[in-house]
Amino acid sequence: MKKLINDPQAVVKETIEGFGWAHADIVSVSIDPDFVSRAGGAVAGKVGLVSGGGSGHEPLHAGFVGVGMLDAAVPGAVFTSPTPDQIAPAFAAANGGAGVLAIVKNYTGDVLNFETAVELAEADDIEVATVIVNDDVAVEDSLYTAGRRGVAGTVLVEKIAGASAERGDDLAAVTAIAQRVNTNAKSMGVALTACIVPHAGEPSFDLPEDEIEIGIGIHGEPGRRRIPLASADDITEMLLTPVADDLALAAGEDVLLFVNGMGGTPASELYIVYRQARKLLEARGVKVTRSLVGNYVTSLEMQGASVTVLRLDSELTALWDAPVHTAALRW
Amino acid sequence: MKKLINDPQAVVKETIEGFGWAHADIVSVSIDPDFVSRAGGAVAGKVGLVSGGGSGHEPLHAGFVGVGMLDAAVPGAVFTSPTPDQIAPAFAAANGGAGVLAIVKNYTGDVLNFETAVELAEADDIEVATVIVNDDVAVEDSLYTAGRRGVAGTVLVEKIAGASAERGDDLAAVTAIAQRVNTNAKSMGVALTACIVPHAGEPSFDLPEDEIEIGIGIHGEPGRRRIPLASADDITEMLLTPVADDLALAAGEDVLLFVNGMGGTPASELYIVYRQARKLLEARGVKVTRSLVGNYVTSLEMQGASVTVLRLDSELTALWDAPVHTAALRW
Repeated sequence: MKKLINDPQAVVKETIEGFGWAHADIVSVSIDPDFVSRAGGAVAGKVGLVSGGGSGHEPLHAGFVGVGMLDAAVPGAVFTSPTPDQIAPAFAAANGGAGVLAIVKNYTGDVLNFETAVELAEADDIEVATVIVNDDVAVEDSLYTAGRRGVAGTVLVEKIAGASAERGDDLAAVTAIAQRVNTNAKSMGVALTACIVPHAGEPSFDLPEDEIEIGIGIHGEPGRRRIPLASADDITEMLLTPVADDLALAAGEDVLLFVNGMGGTPASELYIVYRQARKLLEARGVKVTRSLVGNYVTSLEMQGASVTVLRLDSELTALWDAPVHTAALRW
Repeated sequence: MKKLINDPQAVVKETIEGFGWAHADIVSVSIDPDFVSRAGGAVAGKVGLVSGGGSGHEPLHAGFVGVGMLDAAVPGAVFTSPTPDQIAPAFAAANGGAGVLAIVKNYTGDVLNFETAVELAEADDIEVATVIVNDDVAVEDSLYTAGRRGVAGTVLVEKIAGASAERGDDLAAVTAIAQRVNTNAKSMGVALTACIVPHAGEPSFDLPEDEIEIGIGIHGEPGRRRIPLASADDITEMLLTPVADDLALAAGEDVLLFVNGMGGTPASELYIVYRQARKLLEARGVKVTRSLVGNYVTSLEMQGASVTVLRLDSELTALWDAPVHTAALRW
């Protein structure tokens, strides 16, 4: 295992400590309990947005804390849910008196621990609504999930719901926006290589040198099938077609096209995937009006990518375009 | 070789085509000759900034085309200099009548081809000044370089000189600013793994499973030495100390600390390196007042990182803070 780390058990704390120093204008970092929140604290009267989950998917979620997006992020150990006693203080840190929306990727551990944290927060009179993100069309039920997994679409939920909260929407409205993004965002990914969880020290799964896994999860959970390495254009079609079909995209619709890197794939390859995904959407008569390409929801150093399509309407587009100022997304 | 590509010979054209579609609000893409320039064309009366070099270092350079930074970027084949007949039209596209500054990383092929392109441009009455970036303190002379190599410091030169041009400085002033950044920025990198150039199909060098290379170049050129894998803190000290010593940093000085990922290293590891580099600078009494952490000058999927320190003064700080709107750097 070759990694730029010290003690494998200290990876998360050292990461968020460095992250906090690098972005002290945007975030504050709490150690024990570990969470990241907005510099300057909760915004009075604004709905607070909190997300979290296992580490190893950086910049998700801490990289999305800041104006226009999250109020707090809670990192668990690598690929392991954060605990309720981490999440509850993050709810408190994000609460500006208008309640909190928890954005939770659909993994059994995350769902349970966020539920417990919601109970703890409500005992302290903090109102918390929850949206479960489950955008991955690859498989139904999985290694850590009942139903569909939450993957790259999470960043779209966080951005758009964040803009909704920022413009002053109340908790019910922000929750409805987040739910609408989740309903209209679908994703599917591919792995070329496995990654190594630091405290495990060996690859999370075995993938032969001449095979790739279509429909991979962001923790290396099994996808739909393994196939011999194919061209980027063919692989992209294997990802985009189930996504577009699941959304039942019709000619004339506007979409946001998001090509996400799994961490170890060069930017050049992501743009080659983007190019083909866009061609395929245009061949269906679908218009790509917004785009995002880069490493946003990663699996450590895994090589691979995912394709996410979000059906847009004028309100979601305006919320996407609204200003955002976080470490990893800024305009 | 596992890559998300189609024809290895088409990687650069397909990348910039996808890049152009994804960022059509920011850039225009020319194919044959291949270059990327600002959407909307040259800005009348503003000094134009052009950079370029071999591909494989994305987002360098095309990711830095836009308001506040470059006017055009010229991608060669992977790890291969662009040709003069690509560079000269990019100079023309960037020229708003106030002349052009070429920012060239110090590799023999780049230096020669930019020189020839300058002659071509001057025959067309376009005034071009050149700044050679050579921030890598690891080695003197190298596989493709006489003198020191140009590495991650290039992005700092491009950002700060870009802000200088944007505020209306003339060609001599923008050139002087770019030179000042180069003089005050020093870098050193480490590789944990090699990368594979698509048209070569095999790793650019051999690095045993239990060794790393200190002082690596961004094309896998030899560094100072190979050592057994060490802790992130120890590796960071091996990078930061020669950089700080070469700059002769004194207690009380302000610096920008830039931890750059080589492409295949997770963000978490970059922040662990940042954390230790910052501690070491603070132990010298040096104050880190600006920070940048991420994949900005990469070597395809290479695992590794580099540490760059830029000595700041109030003018360079203000130019760093000035607005920038490119695909890869935006605030």
